[in-house]
Amino acid sequence: MKLLLVNPNISGSVSDLIANEAMRAASPGTQVEVVTAPFGVAYIETRFEALIGAYAAAQLAAEHHERFDALVVAAFGDPGLAGLREALPIPVTGMTEAALATAHLLGHRISIIAISQRIQAWYREVVEAYGFGSRLASIRALDRPISAIGGVQQEHADALQSLAQRAVEEDGADVIVLAGAPLAGLARSLEGRLPVPVVDGVSSAVRHAETLVALKPGRARAGSFAPPPAKPNQGLAPEMQKLLSLHNHP
Amino acid sequence: MKLLLVNPNISGSVSDLIANEAMRAASPGTQVEVVTAPFGVAYIETRFEALIGAYAAAQLAAEHHERFDALVVAAFGDPGLAGLREALPIPVTGMTEAALATAHLLGHRISIIAISQRIQAWYREVVEAYGFGSRLASIRALDRPISAIGGVQQEHADALQSLAQRAVEEDGADVIVLAGAPLAGLARSLEGRLPVPVVDGVSSAVRHAETLVALKPGRARAGSFAPPPAKPNQGLAPEMQKLLSLHNHP
Amino acid sequence: MKLLLVNPNISGSVSDLIANEAMRAASPGTQVEVVTAPFGVAYIETRFEALIGAYAAAQLAAEHHERFDALVVAAFGDPGLAGLREALPIPVTGMTEAALATAHLLGHRISIIAISQRIQAWYREVVEAYGFGSRLASIRALDRPISAIGGVQQEHADALQSLAQRAVEEDGADVIVLAGAPLAGLARSLEGRLPVPVVDGVSSAVRHAETLVALKPGRARAGSFAPPPAKPNQGLAPEMQKLLSLHNHP
Amino acid sequence: MKLLLVNPNISGSVSDLIANEAMRAASPGTQVEVVTAPFGVAYIETRFEALIGAYAAAQLAAEHHERFDALVVAAFGDPGLAGLREALPIPVTGMTEAALATAHLLGHRISIIAISQRIQAWYREVVEAYGFGSRLASIRALDRPISAIGGVQQEHADALQSLAQRAVEEDGADVIVLAGAPLAGLARSLEGRLPVPVVDGVSSAVRHAETLVALKPGRARAGSFAPPPAKPNQGLAPEMQKLLSLHNHP
Amino acid sequence: MKLLLVNPNISGSVSDLIANEAMRAASPGTQVEVVTAPFGVAYIETRFEALIGAYAAAQLAAEHHERFDALVVAAFGDPGLAGLREALPIPVTGMTEAALATAHLLGHRISIIAISQRIQAWYREVVEAYGFGSRLASIRALDRPISAIGGVQQEHADALQSLAQRAVEEDGADVIVLAGAPLAGLARSLEGRLPVPVVDGVSSAVRHAETLVALKPGRARAGSFAPPPAKPNQGLAPEMQKLLSLHNHP
Amino acid sequence: MKLLLVNPNISGSVSDLIANEAMRAASPGTQVEVVTAPFGVAYIETRFEALIGAYAAAQLAAEHHERFDALVVAAFGDPGLAGLREALPIPVTGMTEAALATAHLLGHRISIIAISQRIQAWYREVVEAYGFGSRLASIRALDRPISAIGGVQQEHADALQSLAQRAVEEDGADVIVLAGAPLAGLARSLEGRLPVPVVDGVSSAVRHAETLVALKPGRARAGSFAPPPAKPNQGLAPEMQKLLSLHNHP
Repeated sequence: MKLLLVNPNISGSVSDLIANEAMRAASPGTQVEVVTAPFGVAYIETRFEALIGAYAAAQLAAEHHERFDALVVAAFGDPGLAGLREALPIPVTGMTEAALATAHLLGHRISIIAISQRIQAWYREVVEAYGFGSRLASIRALDRPISAIGGVQQEHADALQSLAQRAVEEDGADVIVLAGAPLAGLARSLEGRLPVPVVDGVSSAVRHAETLVALKPGRARAGSFAPPPAKPNQGLAPEMQKLLSLHNHP
Repeated sequence: MKLLLVNPNISGSVSDLIANEAMRAASPGTQVEVVTAPFGVAYIETRFEALIGAYAAAQLAAEHHERFDALVVAAFGDPGLAGLREALPIPVTGMTEAALATAHLLGHRISIIAISQRIQAWYREVVEAYGFGSRLASIRALDRPISAIGGVQQEHADALQSLAQRAVEEDGADVIVLAGAPLAGLARSLEGRLPVPVVDGVSSAVRHAETLVALKPGRARAGSFAPPPAKPNQGLAPEMQKLLSLHNHP
Repeated sequence: MKLLLVNPNISGSVSDLIANEAMRAASPGTQVEVVTAPFGVAYIETRFEALIGAYAAAQLAAEHHERFDALVVAAFGDPGLAGLREALPIPVTGMTEAALATAHLLGHRISIIAISQRIQAWYREVVEAYGFGSRLASIRALDRPISAIGGVQQEHADALQSLAQRAVEEDGADVIVLAGAPLAGLARSLEGRLPVPVVDGVSSAVRHAETLVALKPGRARAGSFAPPPAKPNQGLAPEMQKLLSLHNHP
Repeated sequence: MKLLLVNPNISGSVSDLIANEAMRAASPGTQVEVVTAPFGVAYIETRFEALIGAYAAAQLAAEHHERFDALVVAAFGDPGLAGLREALPIPVTGMTEAALATAHLLGHRISIIAISQRIQAWYREVVEAYGFGSRLASIRALDRPISAIGGVQQEHADALQSLAQRAVEEDGADVIVLAGAPLAGLARSLEGRLPVPVVDGVSSAVRHAETLVALKPGRARAGSFAPPPAKPNQGLAPEMQKLLSLHNHP
Repeated sequence: MKLLLVNPNISGSVSDLIANEAMRAASPGTQVEVVTAPFGVAYIETRFEALIGAYAAAQLAAEHHERFDALVVAAFGDPGLAGLREALPIPVTGMTEAALATAHLLGHRISIIAISQRIQAWYREVVEAYGFGSRLASIRALDRPISAIGGVQQEHADALQSLAQRAVEEDGADVIVLAGAPLAGLARSLEGRLPVPVVDGVSSAVRHAETLVALKPGRARAGSFAPPPAKPNQGLAPEMQKLLSLHNHP
Repeated sequence: MKLLLVNPNISGSVSDLIANEAMRAASPGTQVEVVTAPFGVAYIETRFEALIGAYAAAQLAAEHHERFDALVVAAFGDPGLAGLREALPIPVTGMTEAALATAHLLGHRISIIAISQRIQAWYREVVEAYGFGSRLASIRALDRPISAIGGVQQEHADALQSLAQRAVEEDGADVIVLAGAPLAGLARSLEGRLPVPVVDGVSSAVRHAETLVALKPGRARAGSFAPPPAKPNQGLAPEMQKLLSLHNHP
């Protein structure tokens, strides 16, 4: 099985973190590959940056999906995921969606630990759009500057652990989600140091993508995740054009 | 006062409908201008198409906003609106947001009349994301093919009126929203033919944009609609780069 | 265009604040007039006082509406508004409804700054009844005695600004609503001193009332805001009787 | 124990129905008395009529409460109830609130059977304001003219029973509430003819009022149901003035 | 009238508290009897313990119900209640359900005071399952060890009162519910010492059970509280077998 | 890896269906074992039957868990799951929880196809308790008698497929969940015959249980899924006693 992880941001250092955790999490026989956005920002904290990341993810997916069995949008917040689920002929998930699925299987109330104050509003909206608002105990976030996005989990390990601890004690969290691709792998290194289960988006997405491939639930030909209906388009990259026309031959 | 209406789709015929209704609705002294997406699809029905439209709207806004006092995303579903509200230094609204504001001032339960079956799921998600789910009486939509997107309101006028009538009688609608830029102006031509108030997205957006300019409520420097924080970016069009750096000089 | 603002309370000093802000906010060509309740209390903080204010607003509306193009219930909490929307043949809005419409166009999460602790429960219920509960970041209120209701914004200006600041920093507010007719005009004098957009109920109501008149959305003849069905009544003031019979001649 | 039932409408025939069911439902030793509004409408179907009924209920309560141990607002929709709970020194409930309490004790999903199409929107808003929206299976209502409000349960008995039957079969109702003072006593006469428990508002209110008196839970001196704070008032009936000043001597 | 109160736990000392408060609360002519679980735990704080208590309550109910007019599940959290309402031919309520009904009749926002930190999550889930989530101001709980479950209200009286006081002042509670059978009777002894109405689960359940018997609303033969459909069973105690077959003879 | 699937009902024929689908779904190297309740009913449709099944599941889990890496409650509705997650030292999931996780990864709105009309209310409550109410498009169910519970998928295959088709066309389902252990494996045999993805509870639970074991998220020592606190118990089976004391040695 071959999985494509799409980093909708331009940070190669974060792509490395993603690749490392994906390889640790994958089942024997699963190959993972990470591609990095050629345009966009270093990491997404806002709706405007998410809009850019979504388009970059779509371009990457259009270009590369044909060689893979499933695709993962490898940024917390899942920019472009819902659209790609319509357009792609393979299963697709994202770090937030997959982390919520894992957390749902481990407890009831979920807290998310994030890397910046600003990022919280966007995360909250994404979680609520998935219908998980009533499961969200809290979002807690670092309130200090980040020197280098690829090094945030080393630089702020203690602060992140302390935020998680407070989420359990003060917010009633049953499960902790460490959010954001820059934190990929941190759950693994915190093993045993938090009093509740800890969830990582990348490893969750890899495992759940494998499950979707294995279960063969079938592709949507109706409902709101069927491919977009055929209609005129213009000015798009050839791969995007091809993706839009892929399913429109009845 | 100068208002920019951004059509995130490639249909010039729809831009004409938008421009005509915007001019009819604008106050004396307000100038309106409509720009059309150079890339994308004919009209948006799905999340994937909305993702493309959002990026197109962002590009157009980045390129043109400096000459205007306020901006309107002129597609129902408001692709890109929340992101643009963060990034732009002027007020911005969209057809769905503005139509909901008007409907909120006219009654409690709102029905939306739409141009295709497929479009309903996306509209519902947008309305719910605005927190208006409990106000939504129903979405009803045409279930027949559309010959030309610019002519849908002429071609299907009776069917659209009949859907609105059923929304009042069967779904308990207090207010009808005629949804989608291709229906711009239809509310005006249905005047007096429906038993409840009827709302048009374009005229609502024009009037509310004027109100936002007039009230001078102030620009967000904090909260989740402050400009995106400064961070590295690459590969973006110069106008997008400029927009991202606009507010980042403390 | 002529707008009637109905103060459902007996405080002439508050009516003056309302009139001054309404005149500042109105478009050229719009005339505003404020009437004050002949019976009731100085200002409304509770459901019982709102019940009295609603009846006073209805009496004033019945008596005066014929000379106006639209009507505004000029107390936060909108006592009587939903009933008057059924009964009156002209558009009607209120300070809370209008302030929420403006805030909806400016950001996602809204905080309300109020003049007394006691008033908060009633405000919350009104906001939730409009379906805006999920948009409400917080209500924060003064906790000190008010010497004179007409002077509260001068007397407590700093405390009010400080409450707004905390709502942004601690509650995640994207927009601040300064609530209550006694605060009419305060948003204008705070311009530039808060880091998020600030909304005033009176100016919002005046502008949105103008919009409703301009858009001509049509009067409800069906749905839950159609005029009350004809039926026996007794003991009412002649204007109320007339209002109840106004629309009952098919 | 003495209970006052306040009919906020002018229909003496409905007051008779209320009195008869109240006497049948009361415990030994409980005396009931019904007073009828001197002004208002024949029965309430709309928010505007509810506004009038609320004021009438307040006047009657102010005038008569001193001789009673508890008070019931005897119209479905409970006009004025929340305000009276603040102002009165005795327990107070209403037909909707009490019927929902009984239904809550009998099953999960509740359907309401009502006497007119128009009345449904108002009932729904009241039920949702009590937080019972998620318990509401449906509201079903007669769609035929009512000859005389006091005779609606005789005139339309079969249609009402049939609506209840459909609510069970099609809407998943566990419990039926027969709504509206004009239906007082109908539940009793339908005994055994519906396949789920049937609730009457008047008998529920009488029994629950007795319970509130018996349990002596204490009067609110804080929270949102404490008496309204002292402040200037004018133009009110002497009994209303007295009620407003009753609790304001610290 | 004869009421059975089922203590789903093994603590005889708590059964005594229940019996004492039930007798104080019962109307003249009502007899109450309390039975104690022969198996289970001392008191329920978790979902796993509730699962055991539910089965014990079912066994006790199956064994004893025939001699009674109504049954009360006498543990806060109501283990087994919804199932017993299906299976038993008599009215049944529980301490949480009944306390919420009383609180609903006394105010809008409700705080629950509980005996342990751990118990809060379970209580919250039960309250939300009843649809009362939007009415819940807070749950506050003791955070100290309990020496003997039957003596908790004496041992921690001041701490419990202080928690209630804070719920009013900080959480906006209109009504306090003192939760858990070990607190039965505490509301009575706190009379006049809290500034809002205080509700006790046992006395509420006794009074509401009496009301259900008096109102004769009828037994469910359809809907989701009709008796379980006939089907094979094995390995159950004879009383449980009898209960399952009781209603299955058409 | 060894997985235990607990059938909380007495039907050996259903245990066979569960075992067969579990073996088809399991990864290479995973062993599955199914145990059947020694007491209880043939299948669960009601809250009362679920109460019995939960206790049976707890007994089986207490007796057998030590030999396994994870446990699955193999009845839709997940009787006992939340309690077992507290008490067991290994990961545990259930058919509903796992099916919802899979469906969440495949689309937004979910319809559940069930084997009897009566079962729907219980399923709905379980789905809502997981916070998935807003994702639930509909529950549709067979309305015909079941000859033998182990043969329902053969006997009613066409009717079940037709219900699923209607859920897509009329209810807006993006994903179909075939609910109930008696339908285990049906999704596999319907492959390609429905226009949206189809989810099976057993295969979902097996795969997700494997994922939970692989991810090693850690065991709850705090939060609401920590083991129940130590306290007196009596009358329980030795395995249950042992389970209650398992984690109580600090």
